[in-house]
Amino acid sequence: MGLKDKGLLVVISAPAGCGKDTVIAELKKADDNVKQSISMTTRAPREGEVDGVDYYFTTVENFEKNIFNNGFLEYVKYGINYYGTPKKAIEENINEGKSVILKIEVEGAGNVRKIYPDAISIFIMPPSFSELSRRLKNRGTETPEDIERRLKIAETEIERAKEYDYIVINDDLSACVDDVLSIIRAEHLKYNNMKNTIENIINN
Amino acid sequence: MGLKDKGLLVVISAPAGCGKDTVIAELKKADDNVKQSISMTTRAPREGEVDGVDYYFTTVENFEKNIFNNGFLEYVKYGINYYGTPKKAIEENINEGKSVILKIEVEGAGNVRKIYPDAISIFIMPPSFSELSRRLKNRGTETPEDIERRLKIAETEIERAKEYDYIVINDDLSACVDDVLSIIRAEHLKYNNMKNTIENIINN
Repeated sequence: MGLKDKGLLVVISAPAGCGKDTVIAELKKADDNVKQSISMTTRAPREGEVDGVDYYFTTVENFEKNIFNNGFLEYVKYGINYYGTPKKAIEENINEGKSVILKIEVEGAGNVRKIYPDAISIFIMPPSFSELSRRLKNRGTETPEDIERRLKIAETEIERAKEYDYIVINDDLSACVDDVLSIIRAEHLKYNNMKNTIENIINN
Repeated sequence: MGLKDKGLLVVISAPAGCGKDTVIAELKKADDNVKQSISMTTRAPREGEVDGVDYYFTTVENFEKNIFNNGFLEYVKYGINYYGTPKKAIEENINEGKSVILKIEVEGAGNVRKIYPDAISIFIMPPSFSELSRRLKNRGTETPEDIERRLKIAETEIERAKEYDYIVINDDLSACVDDVLSIIRAEHLKYNNMKNTIENIINN
């Protein structure tokens, strides 16, 4: 056997209420070769958050050392807190041929595409605007003003859907998960991701 | 409901012995939205060939009238016989959102991509060169010289695999069919093929 082909960096964004966390959880269940990138942050863990699962929680000192060592694919500072995407785990997984999911908001997604042009990007949409509004109301955790604000944000985010490679609609969860799995499967079959495999076919 | 998004033209090529006819037959069985483009020819039907299934058999006069009326996506003349890809059925199916498979050799595939840049192209490969050689021998229909010649042709065709968007390996038939179905599913989810759907989401 010759060299193996590399894996993919899969950027996923979605407006709040589109169920992206559930979709990503199902993707990981459905395919062992799908890993999720875990962000690093200097903010304190919230109740129920687990280090190494929800985030890597770290100190400002350590975070800044990581910046200095070029250890992040991208990072931002919101207020006093840093948030970053560590490079190392992503690169290790991709070198092993695995797909790494990076859940990130629209702005960050644009930055990742600039730094890592081979990344593929998927935007998850609700089946309709009225359905999104209904889902946000059904959560029961937000005030009508919050919901209005979230819908306004969703609108501006959906306008930027054109920056993404693929659009997936989360109407039926399992169809949505199958859509993303099909995208990952198809992307692995692109000529550029098959070069080593082709080499092996010719030489065997 | 607003406008529906268009279907895809899917160009498939493969060296002899890679099982492309079986793969295409399975694709059509698996998905009602997958149609196959049927070529038109002026050559006489061979035993067992059915008009409208294997080819549309027609006269030179009718074929040339079709050329004059710009009725072919592409056509060639081999010796005294014309072979062409009629436009009309392809356009009708694509406008209805269906995917149309066009089985065509490497040279013709290049021409189709020039005329129809939105076409997606898939090259089917054997799992290995030695396996292709074994398959050709097992057919029992060709002389050792024929097999040598076919393997040489396969080699030059595989060199042109880089002109295709996707590479699919036919080792296990059902995995190969699922690969092609994933490609078609993913291509339908590309932003450009989702514009009308997105429009409908925003307005509902």
